[in-house]
Amino acid sequence: MTLHYRGRVGNVLSSLGIEDYDRIRVIKDEEVYEGILIPRPEILDDEHLIIKLDNGYNIGINIEGAKIELISKEKPSREKKIPELKYKEDLPFVPLIVTGGTITSKVDYSTGAVITHEKPEELLDIVPELANIINTKYITLFSEFSENLTPSHWKLIARAVYEQLRGGADGVLIAHGTDTMHYTAAALSFMLRNLDKPVVLVGSQRSIDRPSTDAVLNLIAAARVAAESPIAESVIVMHGGPSDEYAHVIRGVRARKMHTSRRDAFQPINEPPIARVTYDDVKLLTENFRRRKEGPSEVELDDALDPNVALVQIWPGIPNGYLSTLAERFKGLVLAGTGLGHTPRYLIPEIAEIVRDGVPVVITSQCLFGRVNLNVYETGRRLLMAGAISGEDMLPEVALVKLMYVLGHTDDLEEVRKMMKEDMAGEIGAHLGLNVFPPCWR
Amino acid sequence: MTLHYRGRVGNVLSSLGIEDYDRIRVIKDEEVYEGILIPRPEILDDEHLIIKLDNGYNIGINIEGAKIELISKEKPSREKKIPELKYKEDLPFVPLIVTGGTITSKVDYSTGAVITHEKPEELLDIVPELANIINTKYITLFSEFSENLTPSHWKLIARAVYEQLRGGADGVLIAHGTDTMHYTAAALSFMLRNLDKPVVLVGSQRSIDRPSTDAVLNLIAAARVAAESPIAESVIVMHGGPSDEYAHVIRGVRARKMHTSRRDAFQPINEPPIARVTYDDVKLLTENFRRRKEGPSEVELDDALDPNVALVQIWPGIPNGYLSTLAERFKGLVLAGTGLGHTPRYLIPEIAEIVRDGVPVVITSQCLFGRVNLNVYETGRRLLMAGAISGEDMLPEVALVKLMYVLGHTDDLEEVRKMMKEDMAGEIGAHLGLNVFPPCWR
Repeated sequence: MTLHYRGRVGNVLSSLGIEDYDRIRVIKDEEVYEGILIPRPEILDDEHLIIKLDNGYNIGINIEGAKIELISKEKPSREKKIPELKYKEDLPFVPLIVTGGTITSKVDYSTGAVITHEKPEELLDIVPELANIINTKYITLFSEFSENLTPSHWKLIARAVYEQLRGGADGVLIAHGTDTMHYTAAALSFMLRNLDKPVVLVGSQRSIDRPSTDAVLNLIAAARVAAESPIAESVIVMHGGPSDEYAHVIRGVRARKMHTSRRDAFQPINEPPIARVTYDDVKLLTENFRRRKEGPSEVELDDALDPNVALVQIWPGIPNGYLSTLAERFKGLVLAGTGLGHTPRYLIPEIAEIVRDGVPVVITSQCLFGRVNLNVYETGRRLLMAGAISGEDMLPEVALVKLMYVLGHTDDLEEVRKMMKEDMAGEIGAHLGLNVFPPCWR
Repeated sequence: MTLHYRGRVGNVLSSLGIEDYDRIRVIKDEEVYEGILIPRPEILDDEHLIIKLDNGYNIGINIEGAKIELISKEKPSREKKIPELKYKEDLPFVPLIVTGGTITSKVDYSTGAVITHEKPEELLDIVPELANIINTKYITLFSEFSENLTPSHWKLIARAVYEQLRGGADGVLIAHGTDTMHYTAAALSFMLRNLDKPVVLVGSQRSIDRPSTDAVLNLIAAARVAAESPIAESVIVMHGGPSDEYAHVIRGVRARKMHTSRRDAFQPINEPPIARVTYDDVKLLTENFRRRKEGPSEVELDDALDPNVALVQIWPGIPNGYLSTLAERFKGLVLAGTGLGHTPRYLIPEIAEIVRDGVPVVITSQCLFGRVNLNVYETGRRLLMAGAISGEDMLPEVALVKLMYVLGHTDDLEEVRKMMKEDMAGEIGAHLGLNVFPPCWR
């Protein structure tokens, strides 16, 4: 008898004569789940079992209060159970660059906290579908929750992507924490020039050993995008809605984490998602993206970055002298101004002085949606006269990353101004249609 | 012949024998507009005329390229044309506190810029409907676009509201710029204790002399809420959708300007609007609000504020020492952390030191939606151990204003912690239903 479950779950299952891959029924909270018992992954605790439902989706169920029945011992053939990771001629090669985050984590059931697990291979134990989409290998760069990442980490990731694409990869997956995934996605958009294959960041809001995990759909969708899509950009692929129906492909320079915990926390700002992805299909929602080129990649790595840039949200009462102090420490400032891109009038002489001293000041809007327009109100026009650079429709976070990139290339203020206003990766010049603003209370 | 239009518009109209209040038809850009010609308001330029459509809405039309026809000379009775501002026994008394902003502005057609006009009374020239909803008077506190407002201005407004309510007003309207309207609305929520009448901030995204102005609906809706609604809170009333159909009532401590230019820029974060307001009706969408009390107001003014608080968005690469420098200058810090409320790990010892020195550090999330939870990940738990205060589901901007208020009342760190975590005005403890997150790309 083969059963990998142990402890409480193991006792219950073996008392019912249930083995790995048996078809079982679990009734819990008036819901009925039927499917194949998946062998216990190493990272699972002793309270849950995992079954593969007939729709192909794996679900974890805490057996507390659950009624379990054996339906049949008829097993699928052994080969189908856990696909071997052997090379398949007809599948593209998409390496998975592991950087850490919830998607490579598990819950420590003794404390309830999320900790990073040791073996990234465990991902494939739970998402065997990946083996039918891609040939892959793991490249573990580091294991950090993304709140700890810095521009140095972006460089490591960019170099790894570059090496994989130049080495023949058809696309690249990057497993990444969600906290700062959009900053990394923007950084890769600027540092990977002449991109000709998909670079796909993927993460999860709930760890993969939880029944409510979003990791399975996200990984499958991300693999499809990296393997099959015509999108040659740095994108984020995460849940597109609160359920497990589909994921969205969001351009890295337009993505923002807009919710602390929801699966669909990542939203595109000022433009629609590029595509909607189900378990089976990548459906393009726009034609507005950079296209994949077949053949060997000619991507260039241009990772010069100056991390000495500060992001400053303007608030009522921000005192005089605050920005000057920052300008002594940083080589560039990105302000998230109010409304169309404003600061209090009393700050403008100070901003003029900062710019005169050679420190670029880029104005974005803390509204996030819409675009900066410094021509409408007197405050805006005075900011322009003071030498501030309009961030146009760039997100504050994207302007920050871009200014780091630009300052890695030039110190000349006029050159900085020119580069900041030039659309490099789709970060400027969105068509602000009525439908790209998301109020639901209509 | 009575015609108040002059210049180019005046010449065209008089050549057609058209007088004020005649019924006319204007055909422009293949659109047909029919209605009563409204006498030219003083603030209008010489290129536009204004007609009142049959749906009661006033529209301004630039006559460039327009075809104008006289339909009939049948005028409505003179009394109906411009309602007199005489006291009406059956209407509530709702003073309008004017602070500036686009709603009290006009376009300078020589430069295309928006400038503040001189006479707030001009508002009523264009929105005569107000005279059927409220008895009013103007209280001009100052005339500033709201990017220039500071906590001192909030105090002036709070005092004016207090005096009007104590003096017998049934509700108060505040005409305010939109850039920082949500900061002011939050500040009033904390400073006006024991509130028992509606306090309604209203503004516009397009000035009132523009055909596309949102000011008319916003003012009528705001007046209705102040006059008739049972809502005794500091709220924002602005467009609820992109067209002129209805406005929303948004709790001051949940409101955020989420778009640089759209009429429906103000959105409630983490909860639904309190009510939907049409030209005729206030429809409550929730029962979750503080109720109006009839009779003399017993509102209290508690306007102690310490403005020495900084709002800091965390970003990848934020250097060590940055927060310490701020802690030397400010008495409290509000961090907009990543995800569930995180900072990079390397900042935590510094935060611990800042708190040890008696400077409160409140953690909110730059995601804006959702709530801070410092118990899920190790970073969060370390922040708690360092003495950081969880901002729960407060917006960063609201936590900023609240910390100013709290530090106006106590320097004791434990007392600050207690007050920050206590729900004072609906700013903490939202029920985060699935429907209060606005992705439209479902």
